[in-house]
Amino acid sequence: MQPFGFIPVLEDGDLTLFESRAITAYVAEKFKETEPDLIRHKDAKEAALVKVWTEVESHYYEPAVSPIIYEYFVAPFQGKEPDKSVIDTNVEKLKTVLDVYEAKLSSTKYLAGDFYSLADLSHVSETHYLMQTPCASMINELPHVKAWWEDISSRPAFNKVVGGMSFGQNH
Amino acid sequence: MQPFGFIPVLEDGDLTLFESRAITAYVAEKFKETEPDLIRHKDAKEAALVKVWTEVESHYYEPAVSPIIYEYFVAPFQGKEPDKSVIDTNVEKLKTVLDVYEAKLSSTKYLAGDFYSLADLSHVSETHYLMQTPCASMINELPHVKAWWEDISSRPAFNKVVGGMSFGQNH
Repeated sequence: MQPFGFIPVLEDGDLTLFESRAITAYVAEKFKETEPDLIRHKDAKEAALVKVWTEVESHYYEPAVSPIIYEYFVAPFQGKEPDKSVIDTNVEKLKTVLDVYEAKLSSTKYLAGDFYSLADLSHVSETHYLMQTPCASMINELPHVKAWWEDISSRPAFNKVVGGMSFGQNH
Repeated sequence: MQPFGFIPVLEDGDLTLFESRAITAYVAEKFKETEPDLIRHKDAKEAALVKVWTEVESHYYEPAVSPIIYEYFVAPFQGKEPDKSVIDTNVEKLKTVLDVYEAKLSSTKYLAGDFYSLADLSHVSETHYLMQTPCASMINELPHVKAWWEDISSRPAFNKVVGGMSFGQNH
């Protein structure tokens, strides 16, 4: 169902989707009237800013966080030591990204503005794992980033799924 | 204006956007009623498939094509030989991606379906440069990918801008 052989895949009736960010955007679009509007579809400018910060997650945050999580969670699972040089390189990248986030979150409560959106939501899963590594201190040292993380990770919807997010807890 | 220091940036009135894919999505959204509808906003399923294949460009096609273009265009500009090992690694990646495209384009005329969309448009700029490298043969050897490229690169809107896309032509 996914031509490149990766997960996730979403089937909704006769529609088959892949790529996590396309799936979340579809779900947010589908429920924009009946659930919290994560894409700000009534305001073109807010909607554009949601896309900007969703792209930032995709092209800056995730490329730094993902290798860190890999080294701390996946490498031990494969019987390997975490590669310190990979971690160090990506900690440096992540620092730069988090400094931008701290500045942005000093002026607005959430990434795209003073409203919770798909841009914030897209950070939850990977940050949940990041916070279980020594890099948690990088979040905790930045007051606005820390407050933002505490806010978005305490939302009821996240609390419903976080119990199932136990990857790596048994290694 | 761009917190990470990169281009492009779009200013539209008091709105400042960055990240190329967020900018193109905003422009496509803004002109969806008056220009060709690149985001298929009247059909939720088509719109979702546009997002899927835009994500494929972002996470599979561009990461393979970009280093190839860099080695052939930017390295010589900096007085360096293209790095053959970087090219070989990314040619292998690109082969896998293009095989998926060939299969998809055998069943639909464009990537997201039988309609031209932002998913196709997002490939035009980088493929324009790729076609000026020896890797052009990779496109030309796949009949459906070749027909797709000839189609999307001959559209009037692209012909209007291609004259200005002369990066690397003087090296």
